[in-house]
Amino acid sequence: IFSPESIAIIGASNTAGKVGHDIFANILRGGYRGTLYPVNPQARSILSVKTFPSILDITDSVDLSIIILNPKLCVKAVEESIAKGVKGIIIVSAGFREVGGEGLEIENRIVSLCRQAGVRLVGPNCLGVINPLPDVSMNASFARRMPACGNISFVSQSGALCTSVLDFAADRDFGFSKFISIGNKADVDELDLLLYLHDDLNTAVIILYLEELRKGWEFIEAVKEITSGHRPTPVIVIKSGRTSAGAQAAASHTGALAGTEAVYDAIFKQAGIIRADSIAELFDFANAF
Amino acid sequence: IFSPESIAIIGASNTAGKVGHDIFANILRGGYRGTLYPVNPQARSILSVKTFPSILDITDSVDLSIIILNPKLCVKAVEESIAKGVKGIIIVSAGFREVGGEGLEIENRIVSLCRQAGVRLVGPNCLGVINPLPDVSMNASFARRMPACGNISFVSQSGALCTSVLDFAADRDFGFSKFISIGNKADVDELDLLLYLHDDLNTAVIILYLEELRKGWEFIEAVKEITSGHRPTPVIVIKSGRTSAGAQAAASHTGALAGTEAVYDAIFKQAGIIRADSIAELFDFANAF
Repeated sequence: IFSPESIAIIGASNTAGKVGHDIFANILRGGYRGTLYPVNPQARSILSVKTFPSILDITDSVDLSIIILNPKLCVKAVEESIAKGVKGIIIVSAGFREVGGEGLEIENRIVSLCRQAGVRLVGPNCLGVINPLPDVSMNASFARRMPACGNISFVSQSGALCTSVLDFAADRDFGFSKFISIGNKADVDELDLLLYLHDDLNTAVIILYLEELRKGWEFIEAVKEITSGHRPTPVIVIKSGRTSAGAQAAASHTGALAGTEAVYDAIFKQAGIIRADSIAELFDFANAF
Repeated sequence: IFSPESIAIIGASNTAGKVGHDIFANILRGGYRGTLYPVNPQARSILSVKTFPSILDITDSVDLSIIILNPKLCVKAVEESIAKGVKGIIIVSAGFREVGGEGLEIENRIVSLCRQAGVRLVGPNCLGVINPLPDVSMNASFARRMPACGNISFVSQSGALCTSVLDFAADRDFGFSKFISIGNKADVDELDLLLYLHDDLNTAVIILYLEELRKGWEFIEAVKEITSGHRPTPVIVIKSGRTSAGAQAAASHTGALAGTEAVYDAIFKQAGIIRADSIAELFDFANAF
């Protein structure tokens, strides 16, 4: 997911402004060092790059599949990605668990397909993933500008906040190691990423934007080890929902309750996580570390 | 050559600043509407686009082959392009007729291969071709910026002047229909292009930068028909060599004598061509028409 040698964009589009166009364009123009394949059964080429009707028509191997399709079409795209042998899938599209009903059913079906196949899934309903390291240089996101390379990794549940953080970081010359929008976190969640980034030699500080946690004790035990065990990594969190308006916004975004603030404060404290109240404070802490 | 549905760049490169990189990047970023294939046996991908070891490995059809290789490697690239069924070839590389000896022999060999196959050749030793019309949007040149679309076509023997003309045109909001650098004009020459552009419904005025003419009466007869026959098209020329320093520069560039100025003035007059003394004057005339 973070260092693929090849990427298929299922649902790539020639229409500027469409997500399937913009993500494809951002990877292509961001200097990605691997090979990019647009998948679209209607177009012959997208931004001058030859398209394939299905991921199964690509003759070379594909490491990562990024899917931007109507939820109803995502199941087939996931099945074909698995059949093609991808190691990771990112679903950017919305319309899953957060809308309930059929969306939730489709999300559950996709998660079970991925788990059976041993393929990890980021999203759905996310902004994508960025790896600015020069050997990879992958901007698989909505964000037009590739952030500078650095040693801060950022995990975010909200796409909107990602853009603000990127803008803020660019203004203050902060560089990133990994940038991940987890969206509905149907499979990969903040805990998976904290564990991964703790082991990542390019990451010195982790910043985290959370709307809600679904794991309690497991999260505390694991993160305590990250923040205070062998080779500790500082983890700084900014969490929505300190006000009831924020809690409502968070609920509309993920379909989860924002939880009781006091409980979250206690969890963060026990896990050794520093809580920041603003993006500026987040970066002040990151800068200090 | 002007409206290919697919292009192979033989000698495409990942190294910024190399011609094989910059032309590939300019086509890719210029919004070309067809499909672009980088050919390079060493790289897996160039600017994220999958490469092919040879043009013969491309599974789809290829209309135009653009070659940026050492002259010694160009013969094989031309043979393979012909075998692949391309309809046109542009050789950008230098080191042919203008250096004499083996370079001249290779150029003659390539021309005879193209003539036998009925494939037209632009170059070698040229800056490339630009077609800004929105349906094509092809910037197959060194020039970083795509010119605006308009109804002036420009044929140039010199790559250096092309860039000045593009900059000048951009500053004065001139748009182009076709832009061609003919270089050594081993096959396609200014007369072929004048005849083609006279028939081109998108071209209202033709401007021409010449260092030398190799055809005399044939040129006069044909161009007289263009400038004063049925549906006349104005042709404006700027010619190097009004000074002896200019003549020497022209000789070093194309290996041809600049000729006697009085003879050129007479040829232009008989052909109905307007001669301009500066780029500004060239555009003043183009603007008037």
